[in-house]
Amino acid sequence: MSGPKKQILVNAFTMNCVGHIHHGMWTHPRDRSLEHGELGYWLDLARTLERGLFDAVFIADIIGNYDVYGGNVDVTLRESVQMPVNDPWMLVSAMASVTEHLGFAVTANVGAEHPYTFARRLTTLDQLTRGRIGWNIVTGYLDSGARGLGLDGLAAHDTRYDRADDFLAVAYKLWEDSWDDDAVRADRAARLYADPDKVRPIQHDGPFYRAQGYHMSAPSPQRTPVLFQAGSSGRGQRFAARHAEGIFIHAPTPQAARKATRELRQAVADAGRDPYDVRIYVGIAVVPGATDAEAHDKLAEYLRHASPEGGVAHFAASTGIDFARYGLDEPIPYGESNAIQSAASAARERNATRRQLLEQHALGGRYHVVAGTPASIADELERWVDEGDIDGFNLTRIVTPESYQDFAELVVPELQARGRYRTAYAPGTLRERLLGGNGRLAPRHAGARAQRLADLTF
Amino acid sequence: MSGPKKQILVNAFTMNCVGHIHHGMWTHPRDRSLEHGELGYWLDLARTLERGLFDAVFIADIIGNYDVYGGNVDVTLRESVQMPVNDPWMLVSAMASVTEHLGFAVTANVGAEHPYTFARRLTTLDQLTRGRIGWNIVTGYLDSGARGLGLDGLAAHDTRYDRADDFLAVAYKLWEDSWDDDAVRADRAARLYADPDKVRPIQHDGPFYRAQGYHMSAPSPQRTPVLFQAGSSGRGQRFAARHAEGIFIHAPTPQAARKATRELRQAVADAGRDPYDVRIYVGIAVVPGATDAEAHDKLAEYLRHASPEGGVAHFAASTGIDFARYGLDEPIPYGESNAIQSAASAARERNATRRQLLEQHALGGRYHVVAGTPASIADELERWVDEGDIDGFNLTRIVTPESYQDFAELVVPELQARGRYRTAYAPGTLRERLLGGNGRLAPRHAGARAQRLADLTF
Repeated sequence: MSGPKKQILVNAFTMNCVGHIHHGMWTHPRDRSLEHGELGYWLDLARTLERGLFDAVFIADIIGNYDVYGGNVDVTLRESVQMPVNDPWMLVSAMASVTEHLGFAVTANVGAEHPYTFARRLTTLDQLTRGRIGWNIVTGYLDSGARGLGLDGLAAHDTRYDRADDFLAVAYKLWEDSWDDDAVRADRAARLYADPDKVRPIQHDGPFYRAQGYHMSAPSPQRTPVLFQAGSSGRGQRFAARHAEGIFIHAPTPQAARKATRELRQAVADAGRDPYDVRIYVGIAVVPGATDAEAHDKLAEYLRHASPEGGVAHFAASTGIDFARYGLDEPIPYGESNAIQSAASAARERNATRRQLLEQHALGGRYHVVAGTPASIADELERWVDEGDIDGFNLTRIVTPESYQDFAELVVPELQARGRYRTAYAPGTLRERLLGGNGRLAPRHAGARAQRLADLTF
Repeated sequence: MSGPKKQILVNAFTMNCVGHIHHGMWTHPRDRSLEHGELGYWLDLARTLERGLFDAVFIADIIGNYDVYGGNVDVTLRESVQMPVNDPWMLVSAMASVTEHLGFAVTANVGAEHPYTFARRLTTLDQLTRGRIGWNIVTGYLDSGARGLGLDGLAAHDTRYDRADDFLAVAYKLWEDSWDDDAVRADRAARLYADPDKVRPIQHDGPFYRAQGYHMSAPSPQRTPVLFQAGSSGRGQRFAARHAEGIFIHAPTPQAARKATRELRQAVADAGRDPYDVRIYVGIAVVPGATDAEAHDKLAEYLRHASPEGGVAHFAASTGIDFARYGLDEPIPYGESNAIQSAASAARERNATRRQLLEQHALGGRYHVVAGTPASIADELERWVDEGDIDGFNLTRIVTPESYQDFAELVVPELQARGRYRTAYAPGTLRERLLGGNGRLAPRHAGARAQRLADLTF
């Protein structure tokens, strides 16, 4: 590689629940995820992450429950596999109140919201945080969630993305087009709060959403929050290429990541954008120790608390396949499932039996795990970034907050010494920090103010 | 009056916006409502209210904008008459993080939510606040809000309440019936987070909502948040009688309040509940001073900053009557309007011209204003409580946070000296503090766990 080394971006990946990715770890004596209903837990976490100069806390979410494995929620409840799962948005203002720089990339499912009120919620938070809000756009994949919302079941996969496109069209109009930058004057002497000539109603009559009216909130620092997405199907990738500024991919190796990023950046270019106007993240778990032996002892200790079955129950819901119906060494016929494309094909590549799936979920989840000295971990992270052409990582919690603390205390200094990690936060909004520019959607982005948005449809 | 004196309950009445009730006061040099997009403003307010031993901060909300006066939003924007208006729920966790006792009574419009996800949001906050959450249930009354949400306009008045009944039926099932009290075991040694035998899916197939599935969150301290409501029509009163634990009424005099409370408590009894299982609040503004002269000087100073026209623009939206179409002294024919019953009849009683409406809104709003020494204010508050058979007040902000500070510093000590106001917070949840009992919905309440909820419909 020539030129300056790419800075490595790191989000803390978590969820407002007990078991997130590494199931069973709640039984570890140092794990604090049982406290997720306590404000103190989240305030401590926010302070920890800001001390570690993390870009953002990335808070996942799910609407519904994992009821595929065994056809029930028994393992899901016994190991608390994202059940119960609390609302992630309710955490933001508290965590923001004890931090100044930490960003928030929070998940919301378009199927559970209306853009008129959802756009207001995010503008509210973007104001309160002075421009630190990101939205991880998901379309939902659980029938249980659809039934909770009163539907017979999920809409077809591509229809969900069509709906999400239409949702975004409304949201862009509200965020970018309803209020001019100089609409709010707050001029006491002139008794002029906002200039009526600089505020206008939006109009949208799309295939899924209608909306007519003014955005209820005045513009926030970022207007549109930083948009994250994780679609890996063809349709999901087209959606990401159009909207996403941060893309979260799953890849078992840097080579697989490189293949995925090449496709993604090409799709972004095909959507008329600069292929490097997106930041691409891989989910990863690290277990650092002062020595290799120490790291592997720690990993061994973690493994004793993990629940591979919890991990497989999670994966069953992701793929729609009830793995519990198969004997340990019985071949699993993936073809018959209503599987999510990528997850199923990942499993198919491995041609896994249930025994193999349990082995793949030894640490309760199927994320790539790196254990070793800070130097060896830094080597591997650099290799992922350089060979995989990615921009950074969503760092999972194996034991929380220990996994984040270990990263901050052991790995960050090593990356800093290599010129790969910030030594202080730069000023500005989350978008300015992640993407540079003037802090607004890039001019060629479909939602940018530079476009004619009034007629926007996808 | 014989027996112990009734304690006076006080909520701080506010909104996540500039002008709430007393329009135009944002132009006052000490008013901080222009800072409503800053976390610091809300953190300071929370601390101020807890120092003043307020029961709760009551945060109003509106979905839509006031576009009736003059047929546009010009005055609405110029005076910031609840426009822009930000999401109130995004404030709660931050304000909770700097307080221990202050309750939160926050407005949400059932027309903008689905009960499956809304119930989770409130359970999340009730956990994070350790049982300090109340919900002010509204059904919406603005066509502009309905259009924002993609509808042609509002549903009929009574239909909106029918829908709200159905929403509550789903919510009760989720809050009260899906998880047993002892479902969560969090037993590390036994690897048992929750006992699957103690968690069950709900089923609802009502006239407006369907839902099938588990409540996504485990029970919070209060399960159902404390339910507030302000319906004043016949249908609204029936709704309140069935569901509300706190009822917010508008009354110009203690005698009018007594008439309203007698009707309300009878309606509560007719719904099979104890008529004193509801707390009834009147909205009020106070301007205390060390002497009468000081108080009236302060009131005169406030009046110079108020916007009577902003107040009338707000009232125009409340009644659906465009008062701007009439000459100052022209009789206003209320009969032709699609007025909200109570507001229109209040105006009709006064047979008001536009000039008279402007006079009624001299302080930017039409709430009862009490100015005077702490003793004279305490006299009047006692008279309202005793003669009006109410339980307390929603205290408006004329100048914020000054109105709350003045109340806490001047009026509270006087009420305490009279044995009418707490001298410290009692322990427990918001419901325990307001209503006593075991902190759960009273046994005869329609949503109580004591009922058979599986078949609940209204």
